[in-house]
Amino acid sequence: MLEVLDQVRAGAMSPEDAARQLSDLPYAEVAHAVGTTLIDHHRELRTGVPEIVFGAGKTPEQIAAAMRELARRAGGAIATRIDAARADALRRLLPEVVIHDLARIAVLGGPPVRPPAAPVAVVCAGTSDLPVAEEAALIAEFLGAPVVRVSDVGVAGVHRLLGRLDAIRSASVVIAVAGMEGALPSVLGGLINCPLIGLPTSVGYGVSVDGLVALAAMLASCAVGITVVNIDNGVGAAVAAVRIARMAVHGAER
Amino acid sequence: MLEVLDQVRAGAMSPEDAARQLSDLPYAEVAHAVGTTLIDHHRELRTGVPEIVFGAGKTPEQIAAAMRELARRAGGAIATRIDAARADALRRLLPEVVIHDLARIAVLGGPPVRPPAAPVAVVCAGTSDLPVAEEAALIAEFLGAPVVRVSDVGVAGVHRLLGRLDAIRSASVVIAVAGMEGALPSVLGGLINCPLIGLPTSVGYGVSVDGLVALAAMLASCAVGITVVNIDNGVGAAVAAVRIARMAVHGAER
Amino acid sequence: MLEVLDQVRAGAMSPEDAARQLSDLPYAEVAHAVGTTLIDHHRELRTGVPEIVFGAGKTPEQIAAAMRELARRAGGAIATRIDAARADALRRLLPEVVIHDLARIAVLGGPPVRPPAAPVAVVCAGTSDLPVAEEAALIAEFLGAPVVRVSDVGVAGVHRLLGRLDAIRSASVVIAVAGMEGALPSVLGGLINCPLIGLPTSVGYGVSVDGLVALAAMLASCAVGITVVNIDNGVGAAVAAVRIARMAVHGAER
Amino acid sequence: MLEVLDQVRAGAMSPEDAARQLSDLPYAEVAHAVGTTLIDHHRELRTGVPEIVFGAGKTPEQIAAAMRELARRAGGAIATRIDAARADALRRLLPEVVIHDLARIAVLGGPPVRPPAAPVAVVCAGTSDLPVAEEAALIAEFLGAPVVRVSDVGVAGVHRLLGRLDAIRSASVVIAVAGMEGALPSVLGGLINCPLIGLPTSVGYGVSVDGLVALAAMLASCAVGITVVNIDNGVGAAVAAVRIARMAVHGAER
Amino acid sequence: MLEVLDQVRAGAMSPEDAARQLSDLPYAEVAHAVGTTLIDHHRELRTGVPEIVFGAGKTPEQIAAAMRELARRAGGAIATRIDAARADALRRLLPEVVIHDLARIAVLGGPPVRPPAAPVAVVCAGTSDLPVAEEAALIAEFLGAPVVRVSDVGVAGVHRLLGRLDAIRSASVVIAVAGMEGALPSVLGGLINCPLIGLPTSVGYGVSVDGLVALAAMLASCAVGITVVNIDNGVGAAVAAVRIARMAVHGAER
Amino acid sequence: MLEVLDQVRAGAMSPEDAARQLSDLPYAEVAHAVGTTLIDHHRELRTGVPEIVFGAGKTPEQIAAAMRELARRAGGAIATRIDAARADALRRLLPEVVIHDLARIAVLGGPPVRPPAAPVAVVCAGTSDLPVAEEAALIAEFLGAPVVRVSDVGVAGVHRLLGRLDAIRSASVVIAVAGMEGALPSVLGGLINCPLIGLPTSVGYGVSVDGLVALAAMLASCAVGITVVNIDNGVGAAVAAVRIARMAVHGAER
Amino acid sequence: MLEVLDQVRAGAMSPEDAARQLSDLPYAEVAHAVGTTLIDHHRELRTGVPEIVFGAGKTPEQIAAAMRELARRAGGAIATRIDAARADALRRLLPEVVIHDLARIAVLGGPPVRPPAAPVAVVCAGTSDLPVAEEAALIAEFLGAPVVRVSDVGVAGVHRLLGRLDAIRSASVVIAVAGMEGALPSVLGGLINCPLIGLPTSVGYGVSVDGLVALAAMLASCAVGITVVNIDNGVGAAVAAVRIARMAVHGAER
Amino acid sequence: MLEVLDQVRAGAMSPEDAARQLSDLPYAEVAHAVGTTLIDHHRELRTGVPEIVFGAGKTPEQIAAAMRELARRAGGAIATRIDAARADALRRLLPEVVIHDLARIAVLGGPPVRPPAAPVAVVCAGTSDLPVAEEAALIAEFLGAPVVRVSDVGVAGVHRLLGRLDAIRSASVVIAVAGMEGALPSVLGGLINCPLIGLPTSVGYGVSVDGLVALAAMLASCAVGITVVNIDNGVGAAVAAVRIARMAVHGAER
Repeated sequence: MLEVLDQVRAGAMSPEDAARQLSDLPYAEVAHAVGTTLIDHHRELRTGVPEIVFGAGKTPEQIAAAMRELARRAGGAIATRIDAARADALRRLLPEVVIHDLARIAVLGGPPVRPPAAPVAVVCAGTSDLPVAEEAALIAEFLGAPVVRVSDVGVAGVHRLLGRLDAIRSASVVIAVAGMEGALPSVLGGLINCPLIGLPTSVGYGVSVDGLVALAAMLASCAVGITVVNIDNGVGAAVAAVRIARMAVHGAER
Repeated sequence: MLEVLDQVRAGAMSPEDAARQLSDLPYAEVAHAVGTTLIDHHRELRTGVPEIVFGAGKTPEQIAAAMRELARRAGGAIATRIDAARADALRRLLPEVVIHDLARIAVLGGPPVRPPAAPVAVVCAGTSDLPVAEEAALIAEFLGAPVVRVSDVGVAGVHRLLGRLDAIRSASVVIAVAGMEGALPSVLGGLINCPLIGLPTSVGYGVSVDGLVALAAMLASCAVGITVVNIDNGVGAAVAAVRIARMAVHGAER
Repeated sequence: MLEVLDQVRAGAMSPEDAARQLSDLPYAEVAHAVGTTLIDHHRELRTGVPEIVFGAGKTPEQIAAAMRELARRAGGAIATRIDAARADALRRLLPEVVIHDLARIAVLGGPPVRPPAAPVAVVCAGTSDLPVAEEAALIAEFLGAPVVRVSDVGVAGVHRLLGRLDAIRSASVVIAVAGMEGALPSVLGGLINCPLIGLPTSVGYGVSVDGLVALAAMLASCAVGITVVNIDNGVGAAVAAVRIARMAVHGAER
Repeated sequence: MLEVLDQVRAGAMSPEDAARQLSDLPYAEVAHAVGTTLIDHHRELRTGVPEIVFGAGKTPEQIAAAMRELARRAGGAIATRIDAARADALRRLLPEVVIHDLARIAVLGGPPVRPPAAPVAVVCAGTSDLPVAEEAALIAEFLGAPVVRVSDVGVAGVHRLLGRLDAIRSASVVIAVAGMEGALPSVLGGLINCPLIGLPTSVGYGVSVDGLVALAAMLASCAVGITVVNIDNGVGAAVAAVRIARMAVHGAER
Repeated sequence: MLEVLDQVRAGAMSPEDAARQLSDLPYAEVAHAVGTTLIDHHRELRTGVPEIVFGAGKTPEQIAAAMRELARRAGGAIATRIDAARADALRRLLPEVVIHDLARIAVLGGPPVRPPAAPVAVVCAGTSDLPVAEEAALIAEFLGAPVVRVSDVGVAGVHRLLGRLDAIRSASVVIAVAGMEGALPSVLGGLINCPLIGLPTSVGYGVSVDGLVALAAMLASCAVGITVVNIDNGVGAAVAAVRIARMAVHGAER
Repeated sequence: MLEVLDQVRAGAMSPEDAARQLSDLPYAEVAHAVGTTLIDHHRELRTGVPEIVFGAGKTPEQIAAAMRELARRAGGAIATRIDAARADALRRLLPEVVIHDLARIAVLGGPPVRPPAAPVAVVCAGTSDLPVAEEAALIAEFLGAPVVRVSDVGVAGVHRLLGRLDAIRSASVVIAVAGMEGALPSVLGGLINCPLIGLPTSVGYGVSVDGLVALAAMLASCAVGITVVNIDNGVGAAVAAVRIARMAVHGAER
Repeated sequence: MLEVLDQVRAGAMSPEDAARQLSDLPYAEVAHAVGTTLIDHHRELRTGVPEIVFGAGKTPEQIAAAMRELARRAGGAIATRIDAARADALRRLLPEVVIHDLARIAVLGGPPVRPPAAPVAVVCAGTSDLPVAEEAALIAEFLGAPVVRVSDVGVAGVHRLLGRLDAIRSASVVIAVAGMEGALPSVLGGLINCPLIGLPTSVGYGVSVDGLVALAAMLASCAVGITVVNIDNGVGAAVAAVRIARMAVHGAER
Repeated sequence: MLEVLDQVRAGAMSPEDAARQLSDLPYAEVAHAVGTTLIDHHRELRTGVPEIVFGAGKTPEQIAAAMRELARRAGGAIATRIDAARADALRRLLPEVVIHDLARIAVLGGPPVRPPAAPVAVVCAGTSDLPVAEEAALIAEFLGAPVVRVSDVGVAGVHRLLGRLDAIRSASVVIAVAGMEGALPSVLGGLINCPLIGLPTSVGYGVSVDGLVALAAMLASCAVGITVVNIDNGVGAAVAAVRIARMAVHGAER
């Protein structure tokens, strides 16, 4: 952008042309077409987080092309919602890809050097919630944060949760993963003093079949200060947690 | 009913007439008109629980007439959803009525002798839930059960709940009252082994403004064996609890 | 737990270490890892009911491992939501398993000796509701309660229900199973005086396709004192019923 | 309309002009402006039922003007949803008006001679449902049908319903009025063989606060052949019932 | 039932025993077990309509057994929701069955002699609504009513509807079938004076994907006197229509 | 914006400072504070439509201040959702204001000269919908479009609609206003070939109490090419219509 | 229609017969049966837009027959919702058909000469929204409007949207396509002054799985004057846009 | 807790008694009764945030008592949802209270010394959202964080938002407040790299009347890493933000 203004000062460009270019140019350059998908290499500069490929609704070819292009520039790429069929196809298209079956995640190359981050705890209510919890954990690790995993601490056995409090308190930010009635963040919220992110899952049946009850319960929690992400949105919870965890290392100088 | 059959045997009534009477008569007799309301004095014989006057949507005159008629036969009567305006009017119409302001309940006369019942615990998450909890407690006492009241044990301070476990465990059946995210029954459900009834309240705002989140969370609870009543339905929870608490005294001989 | 305190008294452990262990240890020990699932052998001690394996969303291998571990300690294990494919796989993994096709339940070994319980009636509105009703009946039997099965007594033929009242009244607690408009508990509620649990099913189409109408109708019932469980939650209804049925035998001494 | 065609045959109007008039004219004439409201005096000719003034959202002046205009031609007029304030104002504006407080209905003049109709039964579950039931009953009578009123026959006391079956069966068409869980039509549907119309009311609280549960339960009824109208729509139920009841008198010659 | 009373009169049965039998016996006799399904041969006597087999959620064997048993007594039987797979299986199990593919209906034997009925019009908005419309039409014919079929008269081409008014008016009762915005009954309701039943279908996408918009629009119709059945409930609409159409023949003598 | 670039070329501003100013400056200047409200005088330049004051949730003082500021620059201002209390206060604060009671609209000064526009038809289903229809009509006139008003043409009297088609067809764009089942746009959509905007209202009760049924029905319409605005959003419908109506005058040269 | 009136004038038809024919005949003639589907060749005359075959829920044979009949008269035909299986079958049935895989559209023959139209911009938020966007674009082109395609301008990268403003502003009407939170029309609405149509898609998961959030967000937009179509309704958006775009060429003379 | 263990070591308490006390005692002591409300003075020790009095549903007396007790120990107290009536009463009961009318907040005394925190930005879409935004801002300040207030930057004028980016970027964590379509966080999310909390408000009408659309849109945002709180929950957003802002000062040493 400053280049454009320098050309104006040098008289090499009229103010009128510059005005037009300034509103159009800077971002048009960063767009690189892969088939019909644009890859935004500047996203990490702007938001601190690279593009993460959302695999649902994309063909294996589209996923592979996006991962290849992202890895080419950044050294590594990651994709989510890679079901069994997509995983098989990806392994053929990208022999060097690593698939995490439970979390339905594909990783290409190693993550680039990223800002240091304090530990993130991923606390999971039941075994059925593990795929979403593991998606959050792997994304957080890809973004450079160490992860403390705590599982099977649903509130119907509150003793198990109390027994793992020391591990949870060793982290700077906590992601609480739960489906069904989504009560885990409410109980945790009264026991810890660091930021706490509720991650509802679509685990359940009857009134809770689609995760809306877990989501609403977390939003309505009587424990003050919990924030929440969309149902099954492990990526969003991890990105929010890592942004906070980086602060716990950098403090105000970030 | 047996009278009808005796008349048949005696030849005083043809079988055809008896068949008709048998399907129509027994219940028509028990109906006693108070204005346009029928008072079902036989309900307690049939279901173990007398009629409880639901005050919402009734005029003070209708409420007073129903209470007077019920007390005339049974010695005492009770009405719910008596807001401030109805309470004032009732006091004028029935000078001997006793009003419980917080629970919005009116009582006329003493409760009749009823079957003994074991203690019922009414466990309440927050102070805003107290009106509904107290409605349940007063109804249970009116039906003959001693009540253990435990308040301010919301799950965001799980230590408070653990600190009151002995009191809760002293009862034979527990009513867990909560609004907002309704998580109290889930936590309690893993700590006690007696029947547990979830009573959701309409306390909350935003996503939980009308109590549906608390209701759904209780239904979706990961703690197995919780049963639930309608939102703000203190009467229903109390009736269900007392039926169980009577068993805890009588056992199979009931 | 008392062991820890004894060591403190003996001076073999500092109070500080004991404080930490006391909050962490007792429950950590009871956890036994089967793959990534924890089996809570103490649950029955704490809540009176053993762990029941919820098969939906689990692989046959996970189900088999959990059943084997539970049966190893308790003599028997039970799993629900075993569809045809899971049933075939389970039969290969656990040749001694018994599958109840209609109820989609798998049983391994015999149930252990359990506290005696009075009879539970499982009353079912229509033939489409039978799988859920049978899930409730088999779980109740596994937990030690004799079961009275009454079927095809939907309210559109109220005479059929009246004709089976004696059988229903022979039980100490009643589970009323219904989909569509879920009216069965309302009618039953006026005819019996024992505890009544509504179990809505997802049988229906159009406005009632997912069971929410049956659930809401039971919660809104004009018959006082009905409690309700989640849609298709035969396990929850059975556990709640058995807890009550045990009281009918033991009374307050339980 | 025939006049237009006669003018064409007579050559007094070109076919082109007639074509335009024919699509526009016949109905423009029937409209008579009362303030900004059109009164459709031809509606009864076309649909068999006169215009019934819906009072909600109208000023007393608008209601009075419409009733006066309708009564001027037909001899009588009827308006619904006349709350206490509107009733007071109407009595001042139309001194000869008759107000039915419970049903919130205003009547001006006597009903005109209408086609004979067989009796309509209005069967009401609870006393809180009476205003809606009475709206249906009064409209049916205004339209010329004798009405059989049966009240307080909610399904939680099914014996009361059985005791009134003879009265109900004396009618040719039945309107079943119920709020809360709306189960009355389901039970009635298995006991009678004439047309049955479900009329849900907004009586209830918690999950059934707005009548949607009663409505949905009636639509999902396991009793085949029930039809349903909108919540609190006493007018619609009455109109539908009277159309059927006229057939029961006229048969195919209507 | 009279037999029981005769035995009492004869002294062969005590009044007490008779009282018990009278409430249990009459209906137990009519139940005939086919596997786990009860066939209610008396339903037609009681409600005027025989049992119609609802095929969804039943196995072909269950459907075939029920149809055979019904046809054995009544001469004919009919089943709905017979998808392609069930149709193939039924053809093997019941070689003489006739399948109507579009309406997904199976017929066994001819309908028995039934009371005469006036014509029923089945008016259908769009071609996608035809399966539901045809289900209604075939059921009405099976119940003995002649049917007038009118198709492709959606309100977006209101001229087509006006062009078929004479055909529609030749019937005594009209079923209006529509999905999407469900406006057909509203327009028809202002053009005819006979009973009109709205039959919403699950045809649509986006906001109307499940038929709830069509259902609600019919309930909220500005045309007074329309009654409505559940989404895709062709059977219910037909049964309601035939009950009315029989009146149009019989009049009050029915 | 060009000024900034000229200063860069002249060397009077560094490119770095310009870059910062360019992203901040142009819009900050147009904001003019009235209490805590910003008035965006440039909105009409940018979007072709001036700011319209939304009165709901604002105090009369805030409304008056905003209208005065808008009228000061543009010659006239308009505000919506002015209920009776706000209207009284506004008349005191702005003696020259003109209030349209039915439409709840306040106008200050005359509308400025605006681009010519073709006629807009506002077609209204029932008299209860008139306030919303009139809001749309007055806003359209304020924006410079002539308005054709057509009322009382609900689909239950389709003849009335057909009788007004010539008037409707005289406009270039049509706004169809309806509550309840919202069927008017569907019928109109098959009769005209110009752009048609559905404007649902919150007129109705029971299932349609809040306008959602009318909204959904318009979105699901079987008439292709209808677009829809929010419930009761007369302003939005008018702005959309006027943008189209200006094209009907200007054509591509706009 | 004029023929009928001419016969009346000539005395060859009585006015009575003509009246009947006039309401029935004109439209009956235009209906041409293709199997059970009517093809309305006059629709384009009446509404400016030909029939577009909606492929969902139709068999390939029905689609092929409808397209052939439409193309026979108009020279070309177009069908939507042609999934992969239908596409294969159509290619066999209509070898000359052209399938657009991404947009799931089939085209037969060339579009007929249509009124000229100004350019329509189809602006798409994300790559997952492209199928719906392309459906809109292809339909608009089939109806004779040139289309400006702008993709990958979701609001989370608002710079990309600003960079494409010139392209967007070159059109006369804009369709903004977005799923998930559906914010694109709100941002666009403040940047352009031509008609703007929001087209929500069913892209998303969790709370936005079915497109309702995107739809509601567009309806609730703080940008005034946006109109909206049903979820995934590319056809509706295109038809509405082309009607407006024709005006931008023709002006009032259309 | 350590005291109990010391007594065990000293032999002054049996291990059995200690075990019981340990589970009950530590938290019972911290509870201090004010009427029926418990004040949890230890909450700040445990969770870093003191109790904030939620005024809705409490009487002025209850609010005053709670504030007085909290201020007695901590030096200051704060209460929310203080409407005009409660404010008047509070001023009488607590003459030294300070009321913030717009934010409906009451403050008693000064806030105690709290851990330092980096600046929090409260970014508000429209003037109607200001009460909720100001609640968040005042709570954040009470908890010790400096606040940057940015208002009137709704996405329909995206230039205003871009013009305030520098101010927003000066904070360490951002709260984005919006009603209606709730799109502000989505746009902001692509422009900043610090933690971003969406705070939906109940501002809107029609489809967005209760804030659910704004809430859902924020949850479904295409901008990754946004977390969300309940509708109108300014307190929750502030608490979450301050916890993060403290980290930005302290880093990992907190």
